[in-house]
Amino acid sequence: MTPAVKTVDILRVGPDARAPGRDVAAAEEPLEIRLGAMPFVVIMRTPGADRELAAGFLLSERIVRDPSEVASIRYCGDPSDGAADQVPPDQADVEGGDPASGNVLGVWLRGAAAERAAARVAERRHVTANSSCGVCGRRSIDDLMEGVVAVASSAVVPRSTIAALPDRLRAVQEVFDLTGGLHAAGLFGLDAELEGVAEDVGRHNAVDKVLGAELLRGHLPLADRVLFVSGRTSFEIVQKAVVAGVPVVASVSAPSSLAIALAREAGVTLLGFVRDGSFNVYTGAERIAL
Amino acid sequence: MTPAVKTVDILRVGPDARAPGRDVAAAEEPLEIRLGAMPFVVIMRTPGADRELAAGFLLSERIVRDPSEVASIRYCGDPSDGAADQVPPDQADVEGGDPASGNVLGVWLRGAAAERAAARVAERRHVTANSSCGVCGRRSIDDLMEGVVAVASSAVVPRSTIAALPDRLRAVQEVFDLTGGLHAAGLFGLDAELEGVAEDVGRHNAVDKVLGAELLRGHLPLADRVLFVSGRTSFEIVQKAVVAGVPVVASVSAPSSLAIALAREAGVTLLGFVRDGSFNVYTGAERIAL
Repeated sequence: MTPAVKTVDILRVGPDARAPGRDVAAAEEPLEIRLGAMPFVVIMRTPGADRELAAGFLLSERIVRDPSEVASIRYCGDPSDGAADQVPPDQADVEGGDPASGNVLGVWLRGAAAERAAARVAERRHVTANSSCGVCGRRSIDDLMEGVVAVASSAVVPRSTIAALPDRLRAVQEVFDLTGGLHAAGLFGLDAELEGVAEDVGRHNAVDKVLGAELLRGHLPLADRVLFVSGRTSFEIVQKAVVAGVPVVASVSAPSSLAIALAREAGVTLLGFVRDGSFNVYTGAERIAL
Repeated sequence: MTPAVKTVDILRVGPDARAPGRDVAAAEEPLEIRLGAMPFVVIMRTPGADRELAAGFLLSERIVRDPSEVASIRYCGDPSDGAADQVPPDQADVEGGDPASGNVLGVWLRGAAAERAAARVAERRHVTANSSCGVCGRRSIDDLMEGVVAVASSAVVPRSTIAALPDRLRAVQEVFDLTGGLHAAGLFGLDAELEGVAEDVGRHNAVDKVLGAELLRGHLPLADRVLFVSGRTSFEIVQKAVVAGVPVVASVSAPSSLAIALAREAGVTLLGFVRDGSFNVYTGAERIAL
């Protein structure tokens, strides 16, 4: 039994009978991410790969761009806790650790990332405290697309790689997904080799965990990778791929209109309904060798 | 074609062939909700029922508790826009309206809700600006459960009602869900009669839209209603039901561990895997007449 699931007592009701039983539920707990000692966000997530989740979340928020900007990621209350700590992230305090030890994770940043974090906190305060209808309309789709930098990748993916993704992901999911309640995200190479996988009650979290792990390993941009997700593809899923430099995003299900629009703007190849050897290409067909 | 979907050009790739085609994608756009002129949150949502979404969101946030506290909800830039406006919410500016007219919605509150909103904004500023490791551990599950008020309802639901929910929801979904990309939430009476339905790229949004509509109609607490959702049941889905006083939450899929824990604490009957006349009872079996 992994920490990602919890056993629960249930009553099974059928058309003609009922019986007590046991079920496994996907674990969900709050994780508070702090920047230094300052609370930044609370994410409802499945425990596990919390440091990768924090790194991926801060990557998506464009606060962290390089592993050298992460001085330390550790649970609040760890004996080694401290803002003055400068342990590089590739050491033991980033990998491993006992998720059960806490739901509060402190991230200590340095260099430009620390400045971006401070600016973000100040901006948030500003937006909350002092604004008027003068920014009316800023939340348009055009505005969301502003400043999007296209993914730079000349990768070409064989059709057979895409067709293989559902089985490849399912093969590693089988270990964990006893619950029917977990989303999965997998990162694959151009020949469908698995590079990373994560599961979570939250689709966004699964993607953040996979991409955050690559960030901490210094592997960004992921110019020759395919991101495959088990659920629907929303704007934010594509946005996370763009920030990590992933040129191909595929899903077993449907993309939203805004996911398609962002993929087009950012030069991302977006595939949906990848099932039984077939799929739909919404954008960037030139990257698929048919 | 409803505004909830957008037609897109695609390339369909099969094992042996490919062909250009058309597909419909679930529409996704950002909605900025303001409290008066002050930006409060941006939600990625499927346009439509925006006022109900805003009301439901503010209900979940425990800022609005009664329709009388909502003075006005209208799109930013509407000719009638103005903070001094005191039109009751049951008039034309709450129902209807053209979602395409904007992605910025202003909510004007009065009475205790206005005070709660101001306190929330101040608290948010405080938390961001001034905190230390002294609150370490506050984000535990115990803390999340603190202050939960149990749902007061003596409702009993026939097993046949639960068994009927998937078909009832699908019947109304068929009108909209051409995309495979929309979540649905339905509110039902004890005899499975449909009281409200909403669809959205976001599961939480679909629930907020359904419950927000009932809030604005003055129907809370919903002590004799069943909330049925098309996807997984997370903590936040149950939390929204609790705030609206709904005693029974059911889903075609799995609940998370924290959803189960909250349902138990709040006296909510939680059902999962409602399919083909069968379902699992996770909490509150006494409300189901078997």
